Amino acid sequence: MLDSEYPEQVCSIARALEVVGERWTLLILRDLYLGRRRFDEFTDSLGITRTVLAGRLRKLVEHGLLERRLYQDRPERYEYLPTPKALALAPVLAHLMHWGDEHYPDPAGPPRRLRHLDCGGDLAVACRCTRCGAEPEIAEIETELNPALGTSLAR
Amino acid sequence: MLDSEYPEQVCSIARALEVVGERWTLLILRDLYLGRRRFDEFTDSLGITRTVLAGRLRKLVEHGLLERRLYQDRPERYEYLPTPKALALAPVLAHLMHWGDEHYPDPAGPPRRLRHLDCGGDLAVACRCTRCGAEPEIAEIETELNPALGTSLAR
Repeated sequence: MLDSEYPEQVCSIARALEVVGERWTLLILRDLYLGRRRFDEFTDSLGITRTVLAGRLRKLVEHGLLERRLYQDRPERYEYLPTPKALALAPVLAHLMHWGDEHYPDPAGPPRRLRHLDCGGDLAVACRCTRCGAEPEIAEIETELNPALGTSLAR
Repeated sequence: MLDSEYPEQVCSIARALEVVGERWTLLILRDLYLGRRRFDEFTDSLGITRTVLAGRLRKLVEHGLLERRLYQDRPERYEYLPTPKALALAPVLAHLMHWGDEHYPDPAGPPRRLRHLDCGGDLAVACRCTRCGAEPEIAEIETELNPALGTSLAR
């Protein structure tokens, strides 16, 4: 978590990265999408130290991406459930996965496929126009600044 | 850059994050998408130290996300151009932006809109099935492990 690292930035990407831009956090989200819920599952999967993991989980709970739930009384044990706010980041992970598949291929082929349960098709992540439905190239996309922001801040 | 931080992970997300998962790197990519090309443009925009920025740019060049090009002889000055490999990450940034807009809203409204030049429509990022065209919810998506990977590694 990069809290207050970019205080002067009026930018939703910077704000998002304050929450999920830190080392390990996106891998914790990946584990959550894969169904992992418990502290030891994360340490086994990630090889992350318990202290760092505890800090990351606590911040994700504070920011409303995880819900912490008691699943055992003695000793007390908690599991972590992704909220809709966390699940909404799935396309970020899916696209990073496909980009990694393409640019850092494994000799055995892509480690995972994402498939649509209904029809078995492969999933792709793309920018789509909500008006006409096209999937434009980057050269066909413009960014428009909010005129309500002062230009000195709008960066 | 998290080089060799996840050596045991057979996961394209982990591989992608070794390249672009480090603090600042996604914000440098954002600046590139916004047309920034020069060292001083990045430091002005990001408030990043020159040493850290130089390190991040060098790694992005090494990994083929940036092309370094001389634009002035005396003194020598270089600019950085994003390659197709870097531009291919645009949906990651676009989705992080929309997620930030939704979950950390600015009182003045979203700082930026992404618009389709042809029709002026707003862009959205989504997982789409390449077979049937549906945009499934996360519950309708399954991840299928590559059977060519040993199960002990396939995580």
